[in-house]
Amino acid sequence: MSKGLRTRREIVDRALAMALDVGLESVTLGTLATELELSKSGLFAHFRSKETLQLAVVAEAVERFSSVVVVPALALPRGEPRVVGLFERFLLWVQGIPGEAGGPPMFGGNRCIFMALSEEYDDRPGEIRDALVRAQRDWRATIERSARVAMDAGHFRADLDATQFAFEFMGVVMTFKHALKLLDDADAESRARVAFEGLLARSRRGRR
Amino acid sequence: MSKGLRTRREIVDRALAMALDVGLESVTLGTLATELELSKSGLFAHFRSKETLQLAVVAEAVERFSSVVVVPALALPRGEPRVVGLFERFLLWVQGIPGEAGGPPMFGGNRCIFMALSEEYDDRPGEIRDALVRAQRDWRATIERSARVAMDAGHFRADLDATQFAFEFMGVVMTFKHALKLLDDADAESRARVAFEGLLARSRRGRR
Repeated sequence: MSKGLRTRREIVDRALAMALDVGLESVTLGTLATELELSKSGLFAHFRSKETLQLAVVAEAVERFSSVVVVPALALPRGEPRVVGLFERFLLWVQGIPGEAGGPPMFGGNRCIFMALSEEYDDRPGEIRDALVRAQRDWRATIERSARVAMDAGHFRADLDATQFAFEFMGVVMTFKHALKLLDDADAESRARVAFEGLLARSRRGRR
Repeated sequence: MSKGLRTRREIVDRALAMALDVGLESVTLGTLATELELSKSGLFAHFRSKETLQLAVVAEAVERFSSVVVVPALALPRGEPRVVGLFERFLLWVQGIPGEAGGPPMFGGNRCIFMALSEEYDDRPGEIRDALVRAQRDWRATIERSARVAMDAGHFRADLDATQFAFEFMGVVMTFKHALKLLDDADAESRARVAFEGLLARSRRGRR
């Protein structure tokens, strides 16, 4: 990796960490430059504006989510195993992955960047909100697609509403995250598993 | 209402609005004093510290949630109607209640203060986080209790896991809020209704 790329990566990593801590809107080029011991013009060479940097942060978060959750799940056999994989990897994402050597830095351990950004931008129109919405629609579409594949594979029933499946899948993982992170509910994971197993059971062939 | 109480109320209302906009941590006594055209010492007469004010903001949010969601639902006949009432009132809360004359100001129209604060405080230990966690545990406990009453009333089956019911109820309303507010999903409400109707159907007597 060239020095330029390495610096760019460092900037984005630090900006992402700051966004998790104080919110993406509060990440300023000035503070970042100080923290990274870069000149402000050095920083400007990589990002022409605060917004370009913010978009790079969202893109980096999407990239990490993809490599932690989506890619490993899609490597599993098609059908129900992939759907289960998306769920299992999401649990890992929320709980934090103990430092994978060489892999993505531990991420989502304290907060999920997407949940944090969703709250920050849900009433702030603009390019960042658009990128965020796109990422989350993609995530829901990935779940929906995996459910359709499971229907095609004969694991899920043919009359399943895959969009509704994805909607309810999101509900299980959101309440899991909320129960675990905010309510300190020791049973959050087992409750999420019961809820998800119920959703799978209702979706399998031979029901109804 | 005495002038002192009225001023106190105005301060809390404004602080709550600011918290929704910029986050509760960014609400400072200085900015508030300027906005309300009060002296900083006048403000200090009502709130000795930023933290006292922040706690008052959380208490006010709890109060509004209670009067918009919980109280009207608990006024319904015991059993399933109350459970449904909690769900229906929550949908209203999230969608915003067109200015009820004399009632609480429209609230939750753009953001839900609890979701916003949850993200802001989920990794910031302290009194505010504690108050927030208490409020959300109370909300989940209210759902759970209403499910137990529905079991006692014979509407829900006797072997229902009421805690699991509350966990899944939270999931439906969280994914609803997310789909509606962030994804601009026009079907958010109908999807939430389908999910909730499924949850009710699985909980009713005579199933399993």
